[in-house]
Amino acid sequence: MTRARTRIGFLMPDATFRRVFGQWDLRRLETHPDLELLADRPLDLGQPEDRSVLARAELLITGWGTQRIATETLGKLPELRAIAHSAGTLRPIVDPAVYARGIVVSSAAGANAIPVAEFTMALIVLGAKHAFWAADRIRSGADDADVEAAWPSVGARARTVGVIGASTIGRLVLARLRDMDLEVLLADPTLDPSRAAELGARLVPLEELAGISDIITVHAPSLPSTRGMIDRRLIARMRPGTVLINTARGDLVDQEALADRLEQGDLVALLDVADEEPLPRGARLRRCPNTFLTPHIAGSLGTEVGRLSAHAVDEAIAFATTGAFHDSISARAFALRA
Amino acid sequence: MTRARTRIGFLMPDATFRRVFGQWDLRRLETHPDLELLADRPLDLGQPEDRSVLARAELLITGWGTQRIATETLGKLPELRAIAHSAGTLRPIVDPAVYARGIVVSSAAGANAIPVAEFTMALIVLGAKHAFWAADRIRSGADDADVEAAWPSVGARARTVGVIGASTIGRLVLARLRDMDLEVLLADPTLDPSRAAELGARLVPLEELAGISDIITVHAPSLPSTRGMIDRRLIARMRPGTVLINTARGDLVDQEALADRLEQGDLVALLDVADEEPLPRGARLRRCPNTFLTPHIAGSLGTEVGRLSAHAVDEAIAFATTGAFHDSISARAFALRA
Repeated sequence: MTRARTRIGFLMPDATFRRVFGQWDLRRLETHPDLELLADRPLDLGQPEDRSVLARAELLITGWGTQRIATETLGKLPELRAIAHSAGTLRPIVDPAVYARGIVVSSAAGANAIPVAEFTMALIVLGAKHAFWAADRIRSGADDADVEAAWPSVGARARTVGVIGASTIGRLVLARLRDMDLEVLLADPTLDPSRAAELGARLVPLEELAGISDIITVHAPSLPSTRGMIDRRLIARMRPGTVLINTARGDLVDQEALADRLEQGDLVALLDVADEEPLPRGARLRRCPNTFLTPHIAGSLGTEVGRLSAHAVDEAIAFATTGAFHDSISARAFALRA
Repeated sequence: MTRARTRIGFLMPDATFRRVFGQWDLRRLETHPDLELLADRPLDLGQPEDRSVLARAELLITGWGTQRIATETLGKLPELRAIAHSAGTLRPIVDPAVYARGIVVSSAAGANAIPVAEFTMALIVLGAKHAFWAADRIRSGADDADVEAAWPSVGARARTVGVIGASTIGRLVLARLRDMDLEVLLADPTLDPSRAAELGARLVPLEELAGISDIITVHAPSLPSTRGMIDRRLIARMRPGTVLINTARGDLVDQEALADRLEQGDLVALLDVADEEPLPRGARLRRCPNTFLTPHIAGSLGTEVGRLSAHAVDEAIAFATTGAFHDSISARAFALRA
């Protein structure tokens, strides 16, 4: 008895495919007895010859830059039953119409969270010691840089870290903070204090977190309700010497209010993301003191993207063999924060 | 029946005492039934009134900047039986004559290793992603910084980290590297391959490590035999894009050879230490590209020094109650690397 093989294709820009997927991933898909790989390259709904192939696809692997799959696109994908997304955030790719048709969706958010959490922890350690300030001093030609004299409080021990948002990445950061001698606060409107305690943190209102944390790290999703949540009032509550870390999304922070505060010289901002990326040449943040600005590199980069492709292939195999993904995102979870 | 209390004093500069020890540490010593604290401040052999007090001391807590305890000093400390050093490296404080008299010695190297290992891991993660290069590009006014295009290989996964020296700090770094998806090499002439494997690493000769590691981190002790061990020949073996991290001692690396290689623009150096500290204004390293230079801050700093004082007090109590330290350094271990 032969089982029907699940027909699978790639739907993503060529550049994403070349960057994320390798021969080893293709080989795993091609040789699996429960899968039929429709093409060893990404398919394109704009190409007539690809359209008929895609019409047969039951499972699509999507990725960075895949065009949004909404009602019109779905009409061209009559057999589609499952989407394995090889990146973190589903929102730009998946329209609610996908869920309405009963298509199951998987995300590589867990795999993508690893490098972001590692990057964030590195910023917490170096930021807590004001290492970026010290390196700037040395570069500027100063004889020495006495961090203990220059800042109200220094050190990656016996200080307070405030985590905003127990998202996939936020939870991974919380787990890593358990290994350090730090007090951990958490602001998240979806949790209760006992759940926060299970994550190793004390649940506090956002306003309180801003006022008593030495280091603040943002891990909230970017939603209409969260845009600008780190607003002028909250930034004003931060004490001198506070280190604000954002490896999530630029629009969570009021960038003008942050620049105003940074210009006072008593706040530190370690930012991997911005309102507008790449950060425009004229952006005020580029001229503010006490910043460490990186170009959205905390997520999967270089060799790290191998985690994303491996995850998507694992999920394709799981769906083909068991009928279900390991990391499927429910319609409810999608509506909340995907 | 009352047990004789162990007489204890502090022998260190006032500045070290104020920086490292607090009221809580003094209270623990003062209130312990097995201890007699001779003074709630550091004693000074140069002061006649302190000299008679020190002559009664059985246990001394030393620290950064304590004057070397050699034969002449030992003559003024006839009752001394134990030294609890509240910092890592014993060599500047303890002369072999201390061991010759049978005095037992404890070091806070384990407590001091924690922040150095954390700092090193942060440099490994950010260095592996060329985050310092990217931040420099953005600061210099570039539109963007494409790390994947600029460097031969990028990412904190599926790459090779070479650890030089399984010292206390080296072992802590090795333990933390186990949580990452990296291949780990170790060069250490005192270990065999099976012991290295237990530490999660493959033992290789130093020359091989230099030639195949993406990231190299130095954790060897500074000894006559290790000075300049990262020499011109070894630096020449490092491939383009290699990241060299030194949070150990500046004299382990040939600074001129490193500057020569850095000026070629294809090597990265993340250095917390230098030959001469603070780094002179005219030092070539200050003008080299692809560096992140910090002023010897990886070790205990600010709130982190609380680990050192807590360790010294714990050790004093252990000695007074049991007659032995938890972390005593044997004469043999001292001769090898203390």
